[in-house]
Amino acid sequence: MECSKCGNPQIIYKQEQSGQILCKDCFINSIEKKVIKTIKKEKLLNKGDKVLVALSGGKDSVTTLEILNTFRERNIIDLCAVTVDEGIANYRQEGIDIAKRHAQRLGIPHKVISLKDEHGISLDEIMKKPNHKGSCSYCGVFRRTIINKAAREMNATKIATGHNLDDEVQAIIMNYLEGNINNLGKLGAKTESQAEEFTIKIKPLREIPEREIGLYVVAKDLEVHFNSCPYATQSFRGEISEIINQLNENHPTIKYSTLRGYDKIKPAFNKEFKQEYSKNRCKRCGEPSSNELCKACTFLKELGV
Amino acid sequence: MECSKCGNPQIIYKQEQSGQILCKDCFINSIEKKVIKTIKKEKLLNKGDKVLVALSGGKDSVTTLEILNTFRERNIIDLCAVTVDEGIANYRQEGIDIAKRHAQRLGIPHKVISLKDEHGISLDEIMKKPNHKGSCSYCGVFRRTIINKAAREMNATKIATGHNLDDEVQAIIMNYLEGNINNLGKLGAKTESQAEEFTIKIKPLREIPEREIGLYVVAKDLEVHFNSCPYATQSFRGEISEIINQLNENHPTIKYSTLRGYDKIKPAFNKEFKQEYSKNRCKRCGEPSSNELCKACTFLKELGV
Repeated sequence: MECSKCGNPQIIYKQEQSGQILCKDCFINSIEKKVIKTIKKEKLLNKGDKVLVALSGGKDSVTTLEILNTFRERNIIDLCAVTVDEGIANYRQEGIDIAKRHAQRLGIPHKVISLKDEHGISLDEIMKKPNHKGSCSYCGVFRRTIINKAAREMNATKIATGHNLDDEVQAIIMNYLEGNINNLGKLGAKTESQAEEFTIKIKPLREIPEREIGLYVVAKDLEVHFNSCPYATQSFRGEISEIINQLNENHPTIKYSTLRGYDKIKPAFNKEFKQEYSKNRCKRCGEPSSNELCKACTFLKELGV
Repeated sequence: MECSKCGNPQIIYKQEQSGQILCKDCFINSIEKKVIKTIKKEKLLNKGDKVLVALSGGKDSVTTLEILNTFRERNIIDLCAVTVDEGIANYRQEGIDIAKRHAQRLGIPHKVISLKDEHGISLDEIMKKPNHKGSCSYCGVFRRTIINKAAREMNATKIATGHNLDDEVQAIIMNYLEGNINNLGKLGAKTESQAEEFTIKIKPLREIPEREIGLYVVAKDLEVHFNSCPYATQSFRGEISEIINQLNENHPTIKYSTLRGYDKIKPAFNKEFKQEYSKNRCKRCGEPSSNELCKACTFLKELGV
C-alpha cells in the first residue's frame, strides 16, 4: 500500500468515499485544496473581506482559522476572531486558552465574550432552571447574537464558522424530519444576511467530513480542544448524528449525496418561500427582529433575567 | 382506562402521536374517517372514476380495497383489482388466493397477471442470475408496467396502491439521502400521469401508519397475507425503515412532520424541476419512454430475455 498521489509508503488515511489512500502531506494538501475549492465554487470570499472566525478552540474552528489564514498571508482578506464563553464549568476554559494561543501565534485580533457578562446568565445557570428548553436551543441563539454583535463592532464583512460536512448534513436531515421549511432555506455554504445588521455567514469546511478534520489537526500538529460539550448528548442532533454514521458504514457517499440533493433543492425553496425580512427592531435590545422581542430576549424574559 | 371517544372500557389501541385511547369500533372508525379525509383533501376520487386496486393480498392493499369499496357501495366509483404474480416460490401463491377471495366476496372484477407470462422470466429466476441489481429494482419496475397496462385494458381512470405512511416517509427520506431530486417530485398522494398512457396513481392510506393498518385488519377480521417478501431484507429501504422506527420511539410525530414538510416542499420542486414528459415510445414494447428502451425493456435486455 502506498499513497495514491505520490507513492509514499507511509500512508495515514483511506478515504472511504473516493477509495484514495493518502500519506500525511498529500492528506493535508487534499483537505486544504478541497476547502479552497468550496470557497471558490460558492464565492465565499471577496478580496478585501474582513472575516471574523467564530473560534471555539475545537478542531473545526481551529482548522477554519488555519486555512483562512493562508488567504490572509496572501493579503486577500483580513482576519479577526471571537470566542464565546458560554459559562460551562470544567469545559470551556481549556478551549478559550487554546483559541487565545492560536490567535497570538498567527497575530490575529481576538476577543473573548462571555454570556454571563453579555446577558447576565451563564449556560450552567440556565440548565439549573426548572423547565429549561434544552441547552442547545439557548446556546445556539445566544452565541449567534453575541457573534453578530461582535462582527459589527469589529467591522467584519463575513463571519466564518467551522461547520463541517457532518454538521451540515445533520442540520439538513433534522429539518427534513421536522418538516421545518423555514430553517431549510437558511442552510448552505453561505447564508445571506437577513437584515442589514446581520453579517453574511460562510462555512468553508462544509464539504469536509468531521473525521477528516480530526485527522487534519493531528497531521498538522495543531493544538485543539478535543473534549465534547457535556450537554451535547441530550440533543436530537446526537441521535441524528449516530444514525447518519451508521448509514455511512454501508453507504460511504451518503453524506455527499444528501448535501448535493439539498443544494439542488435550495434555490427552489428560496423562490417558493421567499421571506421578506422585517425592518422591525426588538423592543428590548434593538436588534433586528420580526417579532416584538427577538429570540434571545424572549429566552431571557422566560428565564427571568 | 376507557375509550377517549365513547367511554368503552375495552380499549385496543393507544395512538402515540395523538395520545388517544380507542376501543375497537372507534379505532376502526378513526382509520376509515382518516382515509376518507385524505381522499377528500387530496381530491383522490371523482364521481364516476373506475379505480383499479393493485391487490397483493397483504394488509395494505386489502385495507385499500375494503375502504374504497364503501365508495363503490354508494355508487360514487367503480372498482376492479389486479394481482401481480412476481414468481416468488413459497410466498406469492397465498397472497393470490387471499386476493381472489376478497374480490369474490365483494363481487369485484379481478385479474392475476404473472411476470413469467408477461415477460418470460420470474423474480426467482432473475435472482439466480449473476450480477442482478437487487430484487426490489426489478420488482418495482415490472409491477409498475404490468399494472399500468392492466389499468388501460380494464379502462381504469385511477390506480390505487396501498402505500401507507411508513412507505411514503421511507421513500421521501431515501430520496433525500440519495439526493434524487427527480424521484422526489414524483411522490405524494396523487401522481399525475406522466404520459397519456399512464393512469393517475392514488395512495388513500398515505397518512395511516403501518402498525395501525395491521391492527385495522385484525379488528375488522379481514383475511390477509402476513408473510413478508423473502427478498425484502436486502434493501436500503429496510435499513431506512428500521432507522425511522427507532426515531419514532422518542419522537412519535416524526413520520407526520416529515410528510408535512415534504408536502410543503413538493410544489417548489415541481416548479423548479418541471419535467417535460417525452412523447417517445420504447422501441421494443411501444410503451411511453424518454429513452430508446423503457426501464422494463432495458432490464429484460440486460437479463437476456
